[in-house]
Amino acid sequence: MKALVYQGPNKKALEERPMPEIAQPTDAIVKILKTTICGTDLHILKGDVPTCAPGRILGHEGVGVIEKVGAAVTAFHQGDHVIVSCISACGKCDYCRRGMYSHCVNGGWILGNKIDGTQAEYVRIPFADTSLYHIPAGADEEALVMLSDILPTGFECGVLNGKVEPGSSVAIVGSGPIGLAALLTAQFYSPGEIIMIDLDDNRLDIAKRFGATAIINNKDGKAVETVMKLTGGRGVDTAIEAVGVPASFITCEDIVAPGGIIANVGVHGVKVDLHLEHLWDRNIAITTRLVDTVTTPMLLKTVVSHKLEPAQLITHRFKLDRIMDAYETFGDAAKTHALKVVIEA
Amino acid sequence: MKALVYQGPNKKALEERPMPEIAQPTDAIVKILKTTICGTDLHILKGDVPTCAPGRILGHEGVGVIEKVGAAVTAFHQGDHVIVSCISACGKCDYCRRGMYSHCVNGGWILGNKIDGTQAEYVRIPFADTSLYHIPAGADEEALVMLSDILPTGFECGVLNGKVEPGSSVAIVGSGPIGLAALLTAQFYSPGEIIMIDLDDNRLDIAKRFGATAIINNKDGKAVETVMKLTGGRGVDTAIEAVGVPASFITCEDIVAPGGIIANVGVHGVKVDLHLEHLWDRNIAITTRLVDTVTTPMLLKTVVSHKLEPAQLITHRFKLDRIMDAYETFGDAAKTHALKVVIEA
Amino acid sequence: MKALVYQGPNKKALEERPMPEIAQPTDAIVKILKTTICGTDLHILKGDVPTCAPGRILGHEGVGVIEKVGAAVTAFHQGDHVIVSCISACGKCDYCRRGMYSHCVNGGWILGNKIDGTQAEYVRIPFADTSLYHIPAGADEEALVMLSDILPTGFECGVLNGKVEPGSSVAIVGSGPIGLAALLTAQFYSPGEIIMIDLDDNRLDIAKRFGATAIINNKDGKAVETVMKLTGGRGVDTAIEAVGVPASFITCEDIVAPGGIIANVGVHGVKVDLHLEHLWDRNIAITTRLVDTVTTPMLLKTVVSHKLEPAQLITHRFKLDRIMDAYETFGDAAKTHALKVVIEA
Amino acid sequence: MKALVYQGPNKKALEERPMPEIAQPTDAIVKILKTTICGTDLHILKGDVPTCAPGRILGHEGVGVIEKVGAAVTAFHQGDHVIVSCISACGKCDYCRRGMYSHCVNGGWILGNKIDGTQAEYVRIPFADTSLYHIPAGADEEALVMLSDILPTGFECGVLNGKVEPGSSVAIVGSGPIGLAALLTAQFYSPGEIIMIDLDDNRLDIAKRFGATAIINNKDGKAVETVMKLTGGRGVDTAIEAVGVPASFITCEDIVAPGGIIANVGVHGVKVDLHLEHLWDRNIAITTRLVDTVTTPMLLKTVVSHKLEPAQLITHRFKLDRIMDAYETFGDAAKTHALKVVIEA
Repeated sequence: MKALVYQGPNKKALEERPMPEIAQPTDAIVKILKTTICGTDLHILKGDVPTCAPGRILGHEGVGVIEKVGAAVTAFHQGDHVIVSCISACGKCDYCRRGMYSHCVNGGWILGNKIDGTQAEYVRIPFADTSLYHIPAGADEEALVMLSDILPTGFECGVLNGKVEPGSSVAIVGSGPIGLAALLTAQFYSPGEIIMIDLDDNRLDIAKRFGATAIINNKDGKAVETVMKLTGGRGVDTAIEAVGVPASFITCEDIVAPGGIIANVGVHGVKVDLHLEHLWDRNIAITTRLVDTVTTPMLLKTVVSHKLEPAQLITHRFKLDRIMDAYETFGDAAKTHALKVVIEA
Repeated sequence: MKALVYQGPNKKALEERPMPEIAQPTDAIVKILKTTICGTDLHILKGDVPTCAPGRILGHEGVGVIEKVGAAVTAFHQGDHVIVSCISACGKCDYCRRGMYSHCVNGGWILGNKIDGTQAEYVRIPFADTSLYHIPAGADEEALVMLSDILPTGFECGVLNGKVEPGSSVAIVGSGPIGLAALLTAQFYSPGEIIMIDLDDNRLDIAKRFGATAIINNKDGKAVETVMKLTGGRGVDTAIEAVGVPASFITCEDIVAPGGIIANVGVHGVKVDLHLEHLWDRNIAITTRLVDTVTTPMLLKTVVSHKLEPAQLITHRFKLDRIMDAYETFGDAAKTHALKVVIEA
Repeated sequence: MKALVYQGPNKKALEERPMPEIAQPTDAIVKILKTTICGTDLHILKGDVPTCAPGRILGHEGVGVIEKVGAAVTAFHQGDHVIVSCISACGKCDYCRRGMYSHCVNGGWILGNKIDGTQAEYVRIPFADTSLYHIPAGADEEALVMLSDILPTGFECGVLNGKVEPGSSVAIVGSGPIGLAALLTAQFYSPGEIIMIDLDDNRLDIAKRFGATAIINNKDGKAVETVMKLTGGRGVDTAIEAVGVPASFITCEDIVAPGGIIANVGVHGVKVDLHLEHLWDRNIAITTRLVDTVTTPMLLKTVVSHKLEPAQLITHRFKLDRIMDAYETFGDAAKTHALKVVIEA
Repeated sequence: MKALVYQGPNKKALEERPMPEIAQPTDAIVKILKTTICGTDLHILKGDVPTCAPGRILGHEGVGVIEKVGAAVTAFHQGDHVIVSCISACGKCDYCRRGMYSHCVNGGWILGNKIDGTQAEYVRIPFADTSLYHIPAGADEEALVMLSDILPTGFECGVLNGKVEPGSSVAIVGSGPIGLAALLTAQFYSPGEIIMIDLDDNRLDIAKRFGATAIINNKDGKAVETVMKLTGGRGVDTAIEAVGVPASFITCEDIVAPGGIIANVGVHGVKVDLHLEHLWDRNIAITTRLVDTVTTPMLLKTVVSHKLEPAQLITHRFKLDRIMDAYETFGDAAKTHALKVVIEA
């Protein structure tokens, strides 16, 4: 089968690989119909993710059809259409029982990282019963690729951790795909204001279209000032960091209101300054989270009932043969205006 | 001044009354601009509310202008435009501190009940600082009359107690004003389904217009069966009782899913059968609540940000002179299709 | 092997039965070391539990040693010492994912009910990975039999649902084993008052010894009056029903304070009167629950750290050969003063 | 009257001052019976608290007797014995309504800071109805001085924010008075382990006596290593920072388990490094809080029911005349082993 393989820093290729096999009774083999590329895949390609060794098939998102299941898989059968979760959850360990699938001691984020992933014709999914989700009849399968990772990430790490509420004020620092996923799912809770902050006018325009009540291009470094003006000097109830660099985290520290929450979504590579000398008495919370995908069933219901339209995030489509182009398009988003690119296997 | 006075069972009249005076340093006198009639006013008129003695000026809803404040009132000044809360909260007692203003030992629901109310040109509001709310500049004042009672009631007793969630299923038994208030505010949380049940097709049509995903006229007694069909046999996550009679509470018992909640909003005059022989192992909760109006600030923000349009609930308008007609219109809702009638003082 | 078998209403016998076999890859065979008898077993013997057919081996509690595991069991191995949970949880279905193991669509309470149980030398445990718990090294195994059912039941259905808090007031109606389990675990949260109500002085004495701050023998029907006196007329924050008859539920309705909770633990056979005409405006909650055993890991930690001493509940011990005597002793608790009887297999 | 007055950096004196007067109808004048000294008073004396101007009477803790009340005070009367809360809460502003008294826009921490405090014979308490608490009949008044500040601080900022649970693991970095207050109140929730970390053996001995399950003297810099060993490599569920310096906050970052909480209690003067490069995917929360004293009623109940014995924190006693000695004793705690020093007015 064809598969996109990480070959070491800055090298990748579409290779011919053997079909995956059932290794454990809890495995399933899924024929991939659609997959996509994540910012994390780009991190791997830069050599920033030491757990991912050269030779690995990349990809942790996708929808597909069950090809085969192990003897202990009971919830899925050959021919079932499924969403592949980016997190593999054994469903048994202490973390899984607490809904913290991200820290599953037997799984977690392993797909396209420690085991072969979804940017291929077929993929082996461990713990299939607790790591796959049935696609409801009549659903737009392509759109559901967005439920593998990006939407639960924005929702769980940003919106749920940020405790967005009816009438509350939200600022999202970063209007890339993940910030937009937070923007879309924040609206489940009818906040009064959602302020998007970015440096890219195109992405801010999209944010406006997706429901932001205000957009701020921080090129002039006045985002904090503007947010304070927009919130009558109080700051925001929820500040979502969706970039992963110190500057944007500091912005969150500067705009969070007393009693508010900074919900970190971004992947950080270096430490940040936490100004406890200003924040110790502000009654705030800061949260971090690797997505658990524990809300996938809830998100599926919101898609079925049209409270969430994930297809909005898809800007480009490619066949698997042209996945190298897909990477180029996704990697050069400033120019291509790519959000999520779908790859048809 | 003119005031609508309860004169004993089935008797009321528009009388001439002396202006109210500041009695405590925490009082304010409010000149009423708009008020409305509540189902509870009709209960009083039937003689069903023993705490309300003949001679009482009725009404516990309204917007107005501050005429005068007592020496200890600091949050309001003459000329301020305000919403009058149906609940008077001292802000000091144990219940108030816990946000249970409904059970304030110094206040609670006293307006138009134990003290003179808002269906008059002026009203004395005790504990003004914690019982009035500033009207935001530019707001539609008439629409905000709906924030005195009906919207916080539907929201707090129905939606919040019922823990409505993104993608969840909700059934509201009773599509009168209070059920519709629950319907409007349930949508803050993006449930997947909101099923309205009533016996009046007009009210169900309004529910459909207000956002119900399904409507059921229970004339044929098949509401339970239909709800179970609509929910794949599971029942609903949240069942809101918005009528106040045993039959509709029993319907809620019959349609609540395992793990679900029955949120009672209705005012009940008699006991109901609780079928614990079926429900003891269903992991459900049943909640009751007299509105606390503790969410008024949140609701105000949702109005300002157009997540909630309270004006939809207003069907008729009258001058205070014609308040007897207003009562007739409101009392004969089946024929007049009245939801809320606004009275201009 | 020897096993206690239900032979139809009011008939049971210690029979010779074949050893259980692994039927599914997720099964384990457990050699029982200790088991016990539950009030529910007596219900079955009365013929009150239609899901339990004659020929069934009874029992849903116990500790033992893993004899054999199916191919998909990964968390347990031959020789491991384990607690058997009364609830079998597949860990995969929607209910299991929400922590509602009691409503597991593939399991739930099936042991000693729909499949053979633990009052035998060996038992087959389905979904072993999510239905068994490792016994910590050095723990008192006999005491841990109390973690199969009674302690999680008192804790989850009574204490957690009842939201017991530091300084709060609790009343527990029923001082049998299950009420006492609630009493022991309520103390995790340091309530200010725990009032036990029963008709049996012996059980009330035990309650006093187990930490009750007040005991009330309701023979004179004055329990409500006494509770109101003890709570300064307010009633209790948490009323736990641990009997399962209408009278005790009504007592809870009468003593719950505004804002309080009635947490039902009892198994009810008939409906009760819910006095909504008094309760509709009291801001209370009523909860029901079949134990989920989702807190077993937490309870284990409290046992290891000596915050909970389950051995206190054990009053009698029998060999499996004498299980008929054990039933007699347990069934005649008023005379024998039995709480929990342990049976050594 | 006599009063301890801040005279500028490193200067203080017991001066003769005029009696305070009722300034607002919501004021009360309290005759102080007992007061104490807080670490914050030492900060003021170092000149570190710019809001506190020379000439200010210090002190924000104490118990006393109501001498006089303003016209709008209804909950207190002359002769009532009261606890003075360190936080003055108007009870009306948005923050007060949300229980965030610390950020009251009309009050907050003003006593002994922006207005004259309690280290005097009399003090004026603004917003008396919502800033004083009745002393229950028969209570040990001296012990209740600990409820003005230190116990709610340890409880709210450390224990509640830290979500201590039955069986969970807690580490408290800092075994000074505030760390010990967290230790005492953490036990309300029956955690399995409470590990105290400090550099002072005497304080650690006290911690042991107060209920710590393990103590670690971090002189050798091995606290992190030891905590990880004690928790089987997982780290703690709750890490409470009770010092206020970067090193102890970093310790908390190093020992918090995935899914855990760092609850900051310490007053920080400089920024700290937040190692998001390690923490971004650990699903943790960091909380900050200035005490709200919103739990004072709950704490009072725990004292009355002997779940909390505040008197344990008192090590020294002085008359007001000798308050300079009291400061010296408290300031030199390493040598004097002072925890809290009580000053009798």
